[in-house]
Parts: sequence; structure tokens; C-alpha cells
Amino acid sequence: MFMRIDRLQTELPVPKRQDPNAAAALQELLGGKYGEMSTLGNYMFQSFNFRSKSKLRPFYSLVASITAEEIGHVELVSNGVAMLNAGPDKPDGELGGQDISDAPYEPMQDARLAAAFLSNGGGATPVNSNGASWNVDMVTTTGNVVIDLLHNFHLECGARIHKLRVYETMTEPTGREVCGYLLVRGSVHAHAYALALKKITGVAIEKMLPTPNINLDKIPECQKYLAEGVHRRLYRFSPDDYSEIAGIWANGEVALPGDPPGELELVDGVPEGGRIHDLMGDARAFSPEYAPEEMFEIASKLYKKSR
Amino acid sequence: MFMRIDRLQTELPVPKRQDPNAAAALQELLGGKYGEMSTLGNYMFQSFNFRSKSKLRPFYSLVASITAEEIGHVELVSNGVAMLNAGPDKPDGELGGQDISDAPYEPMQDARLAAAFLSNGGGATPVNSNGASWNVDMVTTTGNVVIDLLHNFHLECGARIHKLRVYETMTEPTGREVCGYLLVRGSVHAHAYALALKKITGVAIEKMLPTPNINLDKIPECQKYLAEGVHRRLYRFSPDDYSEIAGIWANGEVALPGDPPGELELVDGVPEGGRIHDLMGDARAFSPEYAPEEMFEIASKLYKKSR
Amino acid sequence: MFMRIDRLQTELPVPKRQDPNAAAALQELLGGKYGEMSTLGNYMFQSFNFRSKSKLRPFYSLVASITAEEIGHVELVSNGVAMLNAGPDKPDGELGGQDISDAPYEPMQDARLAAAFLSNGGGATPVNSNGASWNVDMVTTTGNVVIDLLHNFHLECGARIHKLRVYETMTEPTGREVCGYLLVRGSVHAHAYALALKKITGVAIEKMLPTPNINLDKIPECQKYLAEGVHRRLYRFSPDDYSEIAGIWANGEVALPGDPPGELELVDGVPEGGRIHDLMGDARAFSPEYAPEEMFEIASKLYKKSR
Amino acid sequence: MFMRIDRLQTELPVPKRQDPNAAAALQELLGGKYGEMSTLGNYMFQSFNFRSKSKLRPFYSLVASITAEEIGHVELVSNGVAMLNAGPDKPDGELGGQDISDAPYEPMQDARLAAAFLSNGGGATPVNSNGASWNVDMVTTTGNVVIDLLHNFHLECGARIHKLRVYETMTEPTGREVCGYLLVRGSVHAHAYALALKKITGVAIEKMLPTPNINLDKIPECQKYLAEGVHRRLYRFSPDDYSEIAGIWANGEVALPGDPPGELELVDGVPEGGRIHDLMGDARAFSPEYAPEEMFEIASKLYKKSR
Amino acid sequence: MFMRIDRLQTELPVPKRQDPNAAAALQELLGGKYGEMSTLGNYMFQSFNFRSKSKLRPFYSLVASITAEEIGHVELVSNGVAMLNAGPDKPDGELGGQDISDAPYEPMQDARLAAAFLSNGGGATPVNSNGASWNVDMVTTTGNVVIDLLHNFHLECGARIHKLRVYETMTEPTGREVCGYLLVRGSVHAHAYALALKKITGVAIEKMLPTPNINLDKIPECQKYLAEGVHRRLYRFSPDDYSEIAGIWANGEVALPGDPPGELELVDGVPEGGRIHDLMGDARAFSPEYAPEEMFEIASKLYKKSR
Amino acid sequence: MFMRIDRLQTELPVPKRQDPNAAAALQELLGGKYGEMSTLGNYMFQSFNFRSKSKLRPFYSLVASITAEEIGHVELVSNGVAMLNAGPDKPDGELGGQDISDAPYEPMQDARLAAAFLSNGGGATPVNSNGASWNVDMVTTTGNVVIDLLHNFHLECGARIHKLRVYETMTEPTGREVCGYLLVRGSVHAHAYALALKKITGVAIEKMLPTPNINLDKIPECQKYLAEGVHRRLYRFSPDDYSEIAGIWANGEVALPGDPPGELELVDGVPEGGRIHDLMGDARAFSPEYAPEEMFEIASKLYKKSR
Repeated sequence: MFMRIDRLQTELPVPKRQDPNAAAALQELLGGKYGEMSTLGNYMFQSFNFRSKSKLRPFYSLVASITAEEIGHVELVSNGVAMLNAGPDKPDGELGGQDISDAPYEPMQDARLAAAFLSNGGGATPVNSNGASWNVDMVTTTGNVVIDLLHNFHLECGARIHKLRVYETMTEPTGREVCGYLLVRGSVHAHAYALALKKITGVAIEKMLPTPNINLDKIPECQKYLAEGVHRRLYRFSPDDYSEIAGIWANGEVALPGDPPGELELVDGVPEGGRIHDLMGDARAFSPEYAPEEMFEIASKLYKKSR
Repeated sequence: MFMRIDRLQTELPVPKRQDPNAAAALQELLGGKYGEMSTLGNYMFQSFNFRSKSKLRPFYSLVASITAEEIGHVELVSNGVAMLNAGPDKPDGELGGQDISDAPYEPMQDARLAAAFLSNGGGATPVNSNGASWNVDMVTTTGNVVIDLLHNFHLECGARIHKLRVYETMTEPTGREVCGYLLVRGSVHAHAYALALKKITGVAIEKMLPTPNINLDKIPECQKYLAEGVHRRLYRFSPDDYSEIAGIWANGEVALPGDPPGELELVDGVPEGGRIHDLMGDARAFSPEYAPEEMFEIASKLYKKSR
Repeated sequence: MFMRIDRLQTELPVPKRQDPNAAAALQELLGGKYGEMSTLGNYMFQSFNFRSKSKLRPFYSLVASITAEEIGHVELVSNGVAMLNAGPDKPDGELGGQDISDAPYEPMQDARLAAAFLSNGGGATPVNSNGASWNVDMVTTTGNVVIDLLHNFHLECGARIHKLRVYETMTEPTGREVCGYLLVRGSVHAHAYALALKKITGVAIEKMLPTPNINLDKIPECQKYLAEGVHRRLYRFSPDDYSEIAGIWANGEVALPGDPPGELELVDGVPEGGRIHDLMGDARAFSPEYAPEEMFEIASKLYKKSR
Repeated sequence: MFMRIDRLQTELPVPKRQDPNAAAALQELLGGKYGEMSTLGNYMFQSFNFRSKSKLRPFYSLVASITAEEIGHVELVSNGVAMLNAGPDKPDGELGGQDISDAPYEPMQDARLAAAFLSNGGGATPVNSNGASWNVDMVTTTGNVVIDLLHNFHLECGARIHKLRVYETMTEPTGREVCGYLLVRGSVHAHAYALALKKITGVAIEKMLPTPNINLDKIPECQKYLAEGVHRRLYRFSPDDYSEIAGIWANGEVALPGDPPGELELVDGVPEGGRIHDLMGDARAFSPEYAPEEMFEIASKLYKKSR
Repeated sequence: MFMRIDRLQTELPVPKRQDPNAAAALQELLGGKYGEMSTLGNYMFQSFNFRSKSKLRPFYSLVASITAEEIGHVELVSNGVAMLNAGPDKPDGELGGQDISDAPYEPMQDARLAAAFLSNGGGATPVNSNGASWNVDMVTTTGNVVIDLLHNFHLECGARIHKLRVYETMTEPTGREVCGYLLVRGSVHAHAYALALKKITGVAIEKMLPTPNINLDKIPECQKYLAEGVHRRLYRFSPDDYSEIAGIWANGEVALPGDPPGELELVDGVPEGGRIHDLMGDARAFSPEYAPEEMFEIASKLYKKSR
Repeated sequence: MFMRIDRLQTELPVPKRQDPNAAAALQELLGGKYGEMSTLGNYMFQSFNFRSKSKLRPFYSLVASITAEEIGHVELVSNGVAMLNAGPDKPDGELGGQDISDAPYEPMQDARLAAAFLSNGGGATPVNSNGASWNVDMVTTTGNVVIDLLHNFHLECGARIHKLRVYETMTEPTGREVCGYLLVRGSVHAHAYALALKKITGVAIEKMLPTPNINLDKIPECQKYLAEGVHRRLYRFSPDDYSEIAGIWANGEVALPGDPPGELELVDGVPEGGRIHDLMGDARAFSPEYAPEEMFEIASKLYKKSR
């Protein structure tokens, strides 16, 4: 079972301008082969299909717990996409009833992924940066523990190069923050899968990290997270379960050489996270509606009833 | 953010025989257009892309909270698939090292979705009952609240007919239980979206329920859930959030006429749920490994370290 | 614009038994690369995209008119699929309210394309015999007249080998009739595109026909159509348009050597066709409903009002 | 069976400039999930698979007849796409033999959907505005009458928001006219499916209309159609069939409140429609040919023969 | 550039019976995510896209050379599929003109992947064992040498588990031989990519082999190849190029511990290979034709001319 | 079996500027329906599935041999794509360690197929010019010799119009050279399949050539190849096999009327070809690595060892 908390894993700054092609680039990290839908899909199905769970508890718990974090990554990138497509807050953004006969959506025709506007009103969907759909071919769940962990290690390394390149295309702080945060957390996951593989096979595969061979200290947006030690933490992302991860991530294992030093630690619960941005309405997109005032009133009454 | 609890939403009985084609039928409820990946994908992206959240809180909270339940549905169906593909527990199931030269996997050639065995060792993946992948075309997130809610209402009705038909193909209790539980919960979701639509539009669309026009009392597996009142409950699936749902689901709204009567209620947290079955290993599938004994030993030591 | 007539191009005999795998084989002729969705899709988009229509009228009219016939072919194969999946009429077939708790749909689990039952209640959809979707990769519309006509000629030859093979798998008369009729009409289309190419290029490409190199006289189901001269007729499938086809199909051109001799003729309107079979309801499939009696009554009243 | 008439449902003005990205936006209404291929595909297969047709005649006839109109919608959007990709008529447009060595097609490289030019010479194909293919996942045909009608109602509402957004991107009159006409006709279909649902379930779901909540009077291109009463008419699109629709659409039912008032009426046959634009040739695209003069001459002779 | 030699990499025994579901299982090794189209596609595009080739010659040459071997693997599996679908040679197999009216192809309806017969006459195509197409999502070419090599190492391990499972389904010697040979060669490739990674990163990742953890000595079909030392050889698969591979594969590196001991060696050219089986014609499949005698005669004359 | 030679079929000039949209256009010739992956896939699987090979040797050899040439075409287009995406050589291109925090990859956001950079670092993949994947629907292998040859003839004509249009978009010499070379070779293949069809059917289908109806003398980049007689040559692309092609291509058959006259000839081996360009590294793309100097050093040592 899964629970939801109405916060993002980290807070995203509001963009200073609408930036549809930046949003489109960010889609690579959402619905691409090495995006967050893929990390989610791989770990989720691997955890469902895991055999001999009780005898392989630390390994099962690692995969099962990271699954929960990955849903939050899908959420984070999606929020980034929607914010970049929406642009800065407008004081009168919630007002409806505009004139639609003068082609107010014309600029959307030239957005690289125009369907994001025509179909989704600027929202995120599970497609890559070329608009191709996420699908089952991006899920590996063989049931063999070594192959699945090795796949996951490779997946996180592959995800890292994608995040780095997407980061390098970004000028808006929203997108840069998404990449910066994910680079830190992705490094943790690559490290964790490497340690799991090392425990089983004896091969010190974590020595391949970081791949690509660039340290996080080159990326300004990563620094606050490194300073907090986020790169040394796995969260259990669970009220009571998955503490067996400590058999892999903890017990004297330490941060990677290129990162701020310190012991790895398994942290209870979830990170503090940040506020979810309240995306403003857009009457041109009929989102939430053309003239939403009445709907707002209804919602306000229902809200009061619910207290 | 999302958290994970190491339990299923309901406990599944262990199958009495391996039943690959039943598992394949169940895949329709996992990766089909009207399966749980679709309900998850629709509500997840709608909640991420929701505009004017703060002004439409009860509606946002409804979609956001059900998202969390749906991940658990994906988990439930996936467990059902993996259990039906694995068959009953075998006392010596965890022992490895069998002779693989005498075609021990021959029967898998005739399984309708043979790739489930050849590629996934009997595990679940996001495909439908014909083996076609789940994809973005099964996600609707227009950003318009009425259209999205209407879509969701239709989606839950469509999901119901799929569950009913899959149920009618099942002779193993594992698959029947999956369908029975999902039929009750799916009815709740259809009802909830209907009430949300009624609040906004004034149209009593819940009077279309149940669709198809058959009551849950015809399905033996639903009875214990109805007796407990599961059909009248929405769980918040959150430690602290989404209580605004009570503006829609509660406040004097009552169960559908064909179901046991009573008021609708919003319940804190999650259902008690049931144990996740410990799928036994299968050396033929090299899952978790051909001869996993050493791996078990390593895991056992790591487990002890984690305590 | 298009009009519809509530008849099939030829009447199909009711199957003597339910035959899901025959229906699945027939799907190749519906949604496969060389199926009727493809012939429809190719000619439809070619006719929409046709340039210099007024200067190339006979060629445009040929493609535009055959488009209309192809929709009817899609209809014919779809009816065949639905009939084979439904099986023979049952006297009490329309009665509803059956017990669904005893796995009445169990045999559908082993149907090759089980989703046809689980999702479509036995109905046809645009997929091939392996359940893969029809899509844009099966449409060629280059806008170059010679290439498009050459593609169409090849497409009809390819369609012919598919029809022949599907025919060879059929024991039920419904499926055999579908194939028999389509073989005759497909031969006409191959012949017509060949003549069109000959007019432009001077190459007597119709001498490649029939391909595969087997005459229709080997197929009992084709004989009544050959006797009627169906192989020599192009219908205009239009109230008033497309008579320019006579510049290509008529004017002394004659039947292929292996077929009954005679001049080719352009026929006004549509063939007489046959009755559409009234598929009986199936309460297990909730199609049209679990207990449709009330719905029948409503429909009956509305019907009377409409008179 | 289907017949074809060589006219469009409404006449489209010739664009004043070539506008490839407008054409790409229009593709959303052709091959997108809520585009005309989808409405066509849904109603076509639902009508083929309909059970108990004779007992549910008014409902069957509604779906069957609208199918025919939808093929014409596919035609209309396709013509719009091809016209916007072609641009204004050029006096010497039909002349061939130009110099191709100086990159005369260079601007096409930057067209959002460049394959429309490279592969289709500017023609339309069944893809959405991101170039992704239409496919079976966009077809719902469960065989349950309420679910299928509910799906169709939702589909038409979803189609409406897509049309509105695409309209808002358009500056060329060709594309605006396509959207304006389809908005009126789509509203009719949404209304019709709502009434059908109301007849069966008693739920006044037509009160949800219009969705999105904007009246057609905001759209200049709709006004002439509203003035003619096009929003109150269903055409039978058939020489003799489908008159039972009058049980649903007629009999005192009236126009939606936001539209010009009046009774709904079932009209025999088809609308008068407009001329299909004669797309000029483009030697750079080898469409219809590089130097088509000889081909024109041949066609001219064949045309004369056909008279 | 590539050259072709009219031999298979190893000779395949003719099946003793037609075995369509075995052929369908083998398709997983052809068009599945971990099949030979994928190994080919990955190495081919990586070699095309390789940057700094001249400075990274041994690594480039490794990937470039294995590409050539993989085309031969695609050929080998395809031959296996076609042979299993065709069955044993029949003395009169080449004669044509059979009666097709008595459903001679009926058994093909129940073949798991019936389209292989209906569309391809028993031939192989790039699909997996569920009939889903190979596609770009199965290609990783990031351009980063470590990530690409790591991907390839994981791909070969994943391919190994697929080969093992497919092998375990096989009772016909044709399919077993395909698997046996590929298991030996795939092990070589996994080993080679491991050594390449070790050279760059210093991580002894080859110690993870074999994965899954079963030695080739358990598989009778592998023994003759092990005895010949095939597991210690990389062929250059080139007349003159790629000798730099010896910097990785050779120079004192030795066979894996579970395999017969010995030094690794780079071999000039190609293996001796075996004869390509001369698949007999099948008149029912119109392959090569319904009555091919005349075609044989023509071919015979052309053959003589060519001498 | 296949061998590889480390040269391109023709040498490509280095582009004078980075031209991502030209690369994207060239992708149509790589992964489009009428691109080189398709010609490769068709002939490769047709040759694997060929029945009665020994009796139809000249036809088998033709298809089998051209397969080998087509892999080289895939290579040629891929090199062109990668070169256009990389742009001109930079003196310091191989140096690494650049500052990545100032959005050095920002222009890639606006590249039409941005994923080519984000995922592939500028490399080629099997997708078309809209980013849609190559797949099995682009492969025809019916096993009927006439249908397959006819398909291939149509495929080469279709490929020709695609090459011509892509050529017309190119201003960089790299892309123009790719198109120019492929136009000459594609014409040879169309001619060859036409002659094969003529031998079997007696139809002089080669008279349809060239299609589109423009001679190669209009394309400056083709002239040097025509002057060398490349349009009259089929290479065996094999050390010892496929000489039976001479029964079709030779023996008095001559060049097409619009091309420089002369006899057709079957040439041993492969064309001389040209150098593969040494694509420079790009630290921003982490390709081959962020700071590859150490990797270069390792490679250099391994290279020396291999001598």
C-alpha cells in the first residue's frame, strides 16, 4: 500500500517566464527511457514480482522503498513541466471569460511538443522529450536478483547522464532545481544499488561512480543538498517498514570520494520537502474552466463543510 | 510525496494450481486501457497538473488521494498475476540447482503470454491481456475539471465491466479475490467522481450507477467487504492531508441503492490490509537465482546487521 | 462526404459454433498491415491529399471511389469477427440476469486474443491476428501518383495472399464467405490499379495478376460471385460522382485470363448487398446489458415515436 | 455499406500563406486521442459490434449514422491540413521541372512535423499534433450500451476542448473554419449522446453542456452555422436508413440554452456542403509528379473517353 | 561497410516436427528487449555514433566488430524460427497446386503467434515472443563510453537469462542448438564488455559472471563448443580491421573459472560456420508460389547464364 | 554470416556548421518507413525466410546480397546524422572539464528532435524525421517471391521520393552527399528488382523507372558516381557468394535510358569506399566522457599492446 503527502520532495522556484521548450526537455526526465517513470516502473514491478522476499529481505526492502521515492520524483518532474509551461503567476490569472477569437494561444503552435498545450493545457504526461510514450519496453523485471540490481545500477547511471544534459539546456531556475535535486538523489540510488551488488557478488562496482565522471560540486544547484548531507541519506519512505535496508546502506559505508565525506545513513520517514506550487488557472486553456468563478464558490462551500 | 507500507490492500489466497492464462486475463486489469495502470496514470497526472488547487481543494484532494489508492491497486493485481503464474507453494521451492537440460519450462511455451515467463519469470508487467503495452494514450489530463471528472467517471464504469468479465473467467480463488475487492473499491471511485460532478454541475449522474447494471450482491467475493461497509468508505491514504474530500464524500451522502445502506464516510489513513504473499523461488526461472543458497546466507547476515 | 446504408456488401451465414480463434485469424484481414483498415486508410488519405485533382480526374476518382468500398470491407470483416466470436443464435440469447459467479466466461481465457472478449465482449477492433494495433505506418500517401498507385497495386497483391491464407484456416462458413467475397473484390482493385498504372506508364503490369498465382476458380466460395460477374464490376459507390473511372475501367478492357471472360464495367451506385446479422445479446458480457429488458422496452417506445 | 459524395461538409477558404505549424496543430483534431479518427473509430466499431440491434434500433441507428458523418469530419480536417501545408494557389503551380539542386525545400526542415513534407508532400495522415500515430487504444467498444454511450458523451466533450484550443492557435481562415464547423457539429453529437443516455438512465446529463463552459456565440466562425440552425440538426447521412434516430433527436427536444433556440430535427440525407479545393501540384514534392504535363494529357484523354 | 557470407555461424539440425510455439518462444531471442535485434541495434548504433574513435580504438573496435557477429546471430535465430515453423523436409514439399478449399492451414489458427503464418508464411520477423515489435526503446547509445559498455554488459547478462529460459522450453533439437550456441557466444560478449570496463574503471566486474549463476557445463548443447574453445575466442569478423581488440581480449586474460581453462584469443576472420538449411516450399503458404515449377525453370536458366 | 570493414561506402565531407534540423530530416532516410532500416529489414528477413533457395538461387542471391549493402547504407546515413549534429571539428574538441553550469547545451532545446541530444549526445537512432520508431510494420516478408519482389520494387521507388525531398532540404554538403550517393544506389536496387520481376513475370516493369520521373542528371552530387558507372554496378558484397545475381543483373541488360549508357555489371567484393570521419568528443555531452584524457591514455596503452 501507498500513502500520499501533499508536498513535493523539494520546493521549486516559480519560473520567471513561460518556457515550453524547457518543459519539453524536462519531459525526457519524466517519460524517457532513463526518466523517472522508468525508475518507478522498474523498481515497482521488481518489488511486486520479487521471489523469496523473506529470505532476501534487505535487497527486497531496498527496491521496495526506493519505489516510493520514485513516485515522488515523477511528481517533482511533472510539477516542473507544468510550471514551465504555465510561466510566472499572473495577478489576474484566475479570472475567466477572455476573448478567444483573436488566437490567444497562437504561440503554442510553435512549442516543440504542441500537444502538451492542445491536449493537456500545459500539463505533464508520460512521454519523452520527442513526445514518444513511456511503455513496457522500459521495464526490466527478470526476477533474477543480480540481473535486476545490475540493470538498476546501469539505469541510474544512464539517468544521470540524461539529467546532466537536460540541466545543461536550462536557463530557468525551476528546471535547474529539478535537475539539481534529482542528480543528488539519483547518485544515492546508483550508490545503493552498487553496494547491494557488492554485498552479493563481492565486486566493488561502486568504484565506477560517479558516471559520467563529473562530481556534483560542479553544479551550483546541488550544493545546498550536499551541505545537508542528502547524498548520504536513504529515507525509508514508510511509516514502519524497510529498516532492513540498513544492512546495505549504513554499517560503516561512506559517501563517494568526490562528495562531502561522511557515513551513509538510513533515515526514518520522508524528507521535509517543500510546498507544491499552486498553478494558476488559464481561461484560454479552459483549465480549470473558462469562467471558473462559480466552481470556486461551490468548492469553497464544500471546503467549509469538510472542516 | 508518497510513502509505502509493506502490506496489500487485501490478502490474497494462494492459488491451488499454476494458472498462466488466468494470470494473462488478470493483466487486462493491470495494463489494459481500463486497468489499474490507467486509473493510476490518469489521477496521478491530473493531480500533478491541477490548476487553482487552493480554490478547488475538495476536488483536487479527491483526485490526489485516490491516486495513492490506485498504486495499491496496481500492486494488488500485480501480486495476483505473479501468484497465479507461480502456483501453489512447494515445500522445496527454494532449493536450486535443478537439471535444466530436460526442458523443464516446456509448458510455458503454450502460455498465452509466454513472454511473462521467458522475460519476467512469471512476474507482472504493464501490458494488457493481449500483451500490448500500457501507454500515454490511456491518460487523459485536459486540466478542465468537469471533463477530467467526467472522464474519470466513465473510466471507472469501463473498469467495472472489465473487472466483471475477468472475474467471470476465473476459477482460482486468487484471481477471484482480486476482482471481488477491486469491484467494491472501483464502485466507490465511480460513486465519488459522480458526486463530485453533481456538486459542480447539478446533474445527478450517480443515478447511472451501477453500470453495468448488476449489483455487487451477485458476487460472493464482494460480500465480506460489503458487510464491513467498505463500499461506503473513502480512505484518505495520507497521514495528514486530503480531509477536504469530506465536502464531497460524507455530509449525508449515502450508499447506492443496490448496496447495503449507510452513510458515506471519509476514513483516516489506510485500510488494515493483508499480508503480501512470499512468492517462492524457482530455479528454472533463475529467480531469485539458480542456486540461491549463498545469497540467502549473505542476506541473512545483512538482515542481522540491520537490527 | 459519406453516406451509410444499413446493409453489408454481401450476406454472411451465421456460424454453427463459436470460433474465437477463427475470429482472431480474421482480424489479420481487418487490422493487419495488409488488412482492410490499411486499404481504407491508404486510399482515404491519398484521396484527401490528391493534388491536381481536376487535371487527373480519372485517377482521383478511382482512388476516391474505392475508398468508399473499403469502408464496407472493414464493416464486412468486423461483422465476421463479431459473429464468429458470438457463435450461433440462441433462442434465449436476449434474456439477462444469469449467475455470473460460476466462471461462465472461463473458456474465453484460452482464446488467442482474450482481450477481444474481456475488453470488447467479442467485438472487432483494428488489430491484427496477433493483437497488434493498426497504425499510421500502414499508410502510404506520398502524393506522387505513380508511387501511390504502385503502392496500391502491391498492397492489393499482398492483401490477396493474406486473404488466401486466412481462408485456408477457416472451417466455419462465416469466415469462408468473408474471405471468398473479399478475394473477388480485392482482385478487382488490384486489376484496377494495374490498369491505372498502365495508362500512365505504358507498362502492362496487370499481366502479373493473379498474384499469388492461383485462380479464383479454386475457391468454392468465389464461384457465385464470378458467375454474377462481380469480378468485372467497379461500383461507383456514389449517387452522382466518380463516373470518370470509366476512362480506366471499361472501354474495352476485359477480365483477367483466369477468370470468366467479359468486359469490365463501371456500375452505378452500390451492390445489392445483404442483411446485417442481428447479433444476439450476451448477459455474461453485459452486452448490451446484464438485464436489458427495460432498455428494450424504452427502445421500443422510442422506436414507435420515430415513426 | 457506405457511399461517397465528392463534396466537403463545408467549404474551406484557401489559406493566404503556407502555415505548416497550423497544419500540425490541426493534426490533433485528426489523429489525436480526441480527434476525428477517434470519433470515427469509436462509432464505427461500436456500430459493427452492436448487439440486439433490432431491439435497440434508435440507439443503434444513432451510433451508426453519426459514423458516416465522422468520416466526413476526417475528410474535412485532412483537407484543412493539406491546404495549410500547401498554402495559397500559385498561377504557375502546376508547372513542373524546377531546379531541385538549390535546396528549394529547405524551410520544410523547420516545420514541426517535417515528416508531413518529407514523407507525405504536405498531406494529412492519422497522427496527432506531436506526430504520434492514432491506434486501437483510442477505440472503446465494450458492447454495453450505457458505457459506450457514456464514453461517447465524454469523448465529444473532450473533443470540444481540443477543438477550442486548436482554434485559439489559428490565424489562417482555413484552420479557423475547420474548427468553427466542427465545434457546431461536435456539440450536436454531445447533445445527441446525452439525450440517448437520458432516455435509458433518466439522468439529465445534457445539463452538463456545454463543456467546457463557453457558448458558441463567442466564436465568430460558428455564427453562420448557428443562424442556419445547424446546431439543431442531425442528418441521417443515408438514403433510406436510420430514421429511428427521431425517437431520440426530435419529438420536442430543443436546442441547448446557450444556443439559438428551436426544436431538434432529424434531416434526410446530407448537408449541402461545399466544394473540395483543387490542391495545386508542387514539382518540388514530385506531387503529382516532377513534370506532370504528360500525365495531365493522358488523364484528359481518359476523361473524354469516360463521358 | 559489411560483407555477407552464405553460411550460418553454426549448423542447425532439421526439426523432427513442426513446432510453431517453439518458434514463437525463439522469437523472444530475436525481437525481444534482450534479443539479438537489440544486441545488434545497440552495438551498431554505438559504433556509428562513437566519438574520439581514433583515441579509443580498442574500445571502438570491440563494439564495431561484435556488431558484425550480431547480424549473424539475428540470422541464426531467424533460421531457427523459420525451420521450426516449417517442420521436417517433405519429399514432395516443392510440388505445388494443392487443393486449398479444405482448410489445409487450419492448425495455424491455434499457433500462439498466428500472424507468423498468416502474414509471413512461417517466416521470422523482429517481434518478441508475445508478437510485440522490436523498436528504438531497445537501443541505448548515450555516447558515454562507460555507460554504453555498462549497458552492454548488463544487456548480455539479461540476454543470457532469456536464452536459458527459452532453452528450457525447447524439445526440438533445432531450437536447442540455437540456444546452446548463443549461450556460448553471449558469454564471450559479456566477458569482453566486462574486461573493457575493467580496463577503464579498474573494477573487476567480470567476477559477476556467469549471471545467472549457472555454468555452461549444465547444457549438453554447449559442450562441443566449449571443447573447441569457442568460449575463449573473439573473431574479428573483418578481412583487415579491428585487431586492436587484442588490447582487451588477449594479452594473458583467461577463460572464466567455470569454463574450460585457457587464454583468450582474437581470431582472424569468421568461424567456419555451417550450411544454411534449404527451407522447402509450401504451396499452402504460396511460398515461394502456389505452383512454382515454372519459376524454378526460369531460375535454373538464369543460374546457368550466371556461370 | 556477415563481416565488417572499417570504411564507409562513400566519404562524407565534414559539415561547415552544426545543423540539427538537417540531421533530423536525414533521420527520415534512416528510420522512416521508406528509410534504410526498412530496406535492410525487408531484405534481411526475406533472405532468412526464403524458401526453395537452391531452386531459386539468382533471386535469393539478389535479395541476400543487397541486404549486406543496406547495412552499409544504414551506416552511411547514421554517420551523416551524427556529423550534422556534431558540426565542424574544433581544434580543442577533445579537451574536457568544461563549466556545465551556464547552460552550454541550451540551443539543443530547440532542436526539432531534442532527444537526439538529450539521450544520444547527437547520435543517430532508428527513428524517422518526427522521432517515431522504426518497427516491424515496416517489414514485408510474405515468402511469395513475386509479392516480395514487387514490394521491394515499390519500396525502392518510395525510398527515392523520400531521398529527393530530404535532399531538397539540405544546404550542408554532408547531408547532400548522403542523399546523392543513396539516390544512385537506390536506383540500382529499383532497377535490379524490376529486372528480377521481369524475368519471372515477363512484365517490363523497369520501364516505370525512374520514379519519380526525374533523372539523376539534375542532381550535382550524383554526377561523379554516374561518371564512374556506379549506376551500372551491383557489388556482390561477399568474398565468394552470390555470383548467381549475374543471371539477372548482366547478360546484356543495360543502364536506364536517362542515365549514362552502358552494360550492367556484377562486381566482386565491395566498393572502395571512403574514410569514416573521426567524430570529435564533446565534454558537454559527456561523450566519450567529461574529462576523457585518462581514458585516452588507457586506450593508447591497450592499443600498443595489441600491435
